[in-house]
Amino acid sequence: MRRYEDALWKKEMTLIYDFSNLMDSFIDASAQDPGFRKSVGAISEDDLNAMMPRISKARESLSRKWGRPSRMLAWTRLPHSQKTVVADILRTAARVRRKFDNFVVLGIGGSALGPIAVHEALGHPFYNLVSREERGGGPRLFIEDNVDPERMNALLTMLDPARTCFNVVTKSGNTSETMSQFLIARDMLRGAVGDRWRHHVIATTDKKKGNLIRIAQEDSLKTFVIPDGVGGRFSELSPVGLLPAAVCGIDIEELLSGAAWMDELCAREDIRTNPGWMSGALMALTMTRKGKNIQVMMPYSDSLKTVSDWYAQLWAESLGKKYTQRGRVIHAGQTPVKALGVTDQHSQVQLYTEGPFDKVITLLGVGAFRSDVAIPEGYPHIPDLHFLSGHTMGELMNAERMATEFALTKAGKLNQTITLPEINAFTIGQLLYFFEVQTAVAGELIGIDAFDQPGVEEGKISTFALLGRPGFEQKRAEIAARPAKNRRYMIGF
Amino acid sequence: MRRYEDALWKKEMTLIYDFSNLMDSFIDASAQDPGFRKSVGAISEDDLNAMMPRISKARESLSRKWGRPSRMLAWTRLPHSQKTVVADILRTAARVRRKFDNFVVLGIGGSALGPIAVHEALGHPFYNLVSREERGGGPRLFIEDNVDPERMNALLTMLDPARTCFNVVTKSGNTSETMSQFLIARDMLRGAVGDRWRHHVIATTDKKKGNLIRIAQEDSLKTFVIPDGVGGRFSELSPVGLLPAAVCGIDIEELLSGAAWMDELCAREDIRTNPGWMSGALMALTMTRKGKNIQVMMPYSDSLKTVSDWYAQLWAESLGKKYTQRGRVIHAGQTPVKALGVTDQHSQVQLYTEGPFDKVITLLGVGAFRSDVAIPEGYPHIPDLHFLSGHTMGELMNAERMATEFALTKAGKLNQTITLPEINAFTIGQLLYFFEVQTAVAGELIGIDAFDQPGVEEGKISTFALLGRPGFEQKRAEIAARPAKNRRYMIGF
Repeated sequence: MRRYEDALWKKEMTLIYDFSNLMDSFIDASAQDPGFRKSVGAISEDDLNAMMPRISKARESLSRKWGRPSRMLAWTRLPHSQKTVVADILRTAARVRRKFDNFVVLGIGGSALGPIAVHEALGHPFYNLVSREERGGGPRLFIEDNVDPERMNALLTMLDPARTCFNVVTKSGNTSETMSQFLIARDMLRGAVGDRWRHHVIATTDKKKGNLIRIAQEDSLKTFVIPDGVGGRFSELSPVGLLPAAVCGIDIEELLSGAAWMDELCAREDIRTNPGWMSGALMALTMTRKGKNIQVMMPYSDSLKTVSDWYAQLWAESLGKKYTQRGRVIHAGQTPVKALGVTDQHSQVQLYTEGPFDKVITLLGVGAFRSDVAIPEGYPHIPDLHFLSGHTMGELMNAERMATEFALTKAGKLNQTITLPEINAFTIGQLLYFFEVQTAVAGELIGIDAFDQPGVEEGKISTFALLGRPGFEQKRAEIAARPAKNRRYMIGF
Repeated sequence: MRRYEDALWKKEMTLIYDFSNLMDSFIDASAQDPGFRKSVGAISEDDLNAMMPRISKARESLSRKWGRPSRMLAWTRLPHSQKTVVADILRTAARVRRKFDNFVVLGIGGSALGPIAVHEALGHPFYNLVSREERGGGPRLFIEDNVDPERMNALLTMLDPARTCFNVVTKSGNTSETMSQFLIARDMLRGAVGDRWRHHVIATTDKKKGNLIRIAQEDSLKTFVIPDGVGGRFSELSPVGLLPAAVCGIDIEELLSGAAWMDELCAREDIRTNPGWMSGALMALTMTRKGKNIQVMMPYSDSLKTVSDWYAQLWAESLGKKYTQRGRVIHAGQTPVKALGVTDQHSQVQLYTEGPFDKVITLLGVGAFRSDVAIPEGYPHIPDLHFLSGHTMGELMNAERMATEFALTKAGKLNQTITLPEINAFTIGQLLYFFEVQTAVAGELIGIDAFDQPGVEEGKISTFALLGRPGFEQKRAEIAARPAKNRRYMIGF
């Protein structure tokens, strides 16, 4: 039996979502001043009760889509529906591990953020720097999610194309950045290995739409499909994320099992014990009723640092919307901020404790670290240094997290804590899926469509226009018609 | 003559600060609707004129401290006053480069963020991965700014202590995180090289205060001094930042020369041509008068990504204050958000264009990249891919930046652009110093003390209490007296 099939272990490994410090009974405990209480904007039992009818309605409307293919909630099927795909991914990953020294993901947004987050959470902290053996036999991993020419140049100079596999990932199959990278990589491969370049490229894309699937078919590339109804930012548990993870030796079945477990918890009828629904409802309340337009995600673990990046896309792109589903102008959205404990206690926490009452701070904690380091004796004659000796770094980390929680709460700043009993594929699967449910729920409660991104079109089209793509002459003219810049508002030269 | 001594070159390399899209004549050009105009909150000439008396007053009060040692503006002396220190740093760096394979900075907050930003801006994009020759002969660089036990363990296992030099950096000399790391590193070194551990440690700290200088004197460690009146977040141009930069082969004299040049520009009498003062005044306006509680820093360059982290500390910790200098409760602060172009167009820009009118977006652009990559021909029969061929990645990057600027402006979202003609030590020196002046000016205009951080004390003391440090029993009791958590607000188990 694999450990994630053991009911007791699963229970032990269940995330804990602690929202005490969003509630007035905790955060207002020391506050008598009504002005202060109003600034704090804590949530009361009455707030929650008043929301229940809306929550019931939202559950009805979401449940019609839940678990169905070809709808925008098709990502809820991913933990359950991928047996065949997983087998194919594992076979492919084994081949990649045998044949290549480098695995390069070409993708941007949802095609990169999930793979980065899972790799950093579960891979060696210095993965590319250590020996192949120390990283578990996998190739080096590079996730290239930008079109920076300096970095791309450096990368291409560094890699031996004959020993490199590229995974081109784009849901639409038309992403300019990714397709540009692909053209460059293909050209380099052709120069080095000729027609065999095809064996160095794996495409992950839609099964019908877009240029990438067309090319993949023309050139017979190994291809993985991003299922219908799985948007970019909800695609980590599809082949988008599973292939790079498997290539690096991460147990993707355990990852999916964690997500499936969270799916079960998020199906609980009683919202008070349902983590995804409860957190979605609470966060919607902070946005719509309590004036919090910022959410800070602050993991106390270097390994979880880029989970914040992945979450920032999920939260920003899903909820940042001009219109409600009924077409009313709303300009919704809570801006996600990435922080890192304890590091940002020396950077951001001054603002969080003393600054405006405009944010919710989400702390991510780790119960037990995978390894620890004792702080040794050093200078017994210096008492205000000596007190550290005998503790461990893990203890210091967690003491600082609890101290920050205490300080924030005392200052009246809303905060909540999600604890992973430890960091492993099962808990990371839970965490990602938890946030996906939370986001879908918050979107439904706010009344916006959490699954589109109409606001990025303008920039995309304007880029086409500026690059002189045929058919975009009108946009080019519109850009040219903007008022000319002048020296009045430019300083430097 | 070094290039940064050439007046013409300096002029060519001057940053351009373009704030057109903060001004109503640009951003409201297409907006007729008064409700929309109000949401936008653009700045008018009247706003600026109304602010002039306050600006004059602020200049008077700051100029009394400017360039003086032992005052909180002592950082304004750093570009001009370090000839002897620089010579010492260059000698030390040469010795480190000769003797060691690894250079590890132990520091947190201001002691790490500046070194990271400058290294990423000016070093090889894959510095630690490439050969010693390709990185210009320097040792590998590790900047450890957290107490994560898993990462620390991995690092210590990976490094050969006999070939490793540690730079312990703490202004106060008492930072728990850094001193814990130091005790661990020292222990490891002693195990490997015995008493010679002293030659593997360089201390950067205050000249008199704190445990680190005491230890440095007892153990005869090579020491660099952080001058009086230079706070952590303003210390990058002191030995804190200069030593790691020099060790990695960065031209620190050019860096300081860039800062000195910006200091000259920021001394201009006419505020309309003074970049630091103008931007400080404009940002203060957005915070106090236009309801913008968020500032996004979005460089269009991978190399500048961590400049946003450095800036986030500077901006958050300086301006996030509960009290004005006169003691009135204000809860000031504008939350800094780190983004990256073009990557975050696929993550955050949906929110920035369609979401609330609550932020200013600062774009960092690069005129000419240090290298470029052509996008080759590939599939001439697919026109909506083929249009990319013939362009370069640099062109794509800059077209996307301009397209985003256009889309934001059209959506009524305040934005500004700072352009570096290219990325080099001179322009980075300018950029850092520009932001420091901007921050000091904004703080003075808002009326807070930009140079302290009283809000971090509570968390620090609470950590001591939780770790059982003698003398903190009362705080421990206070923490224990908080209402007990209960299952009502905890989901999971």
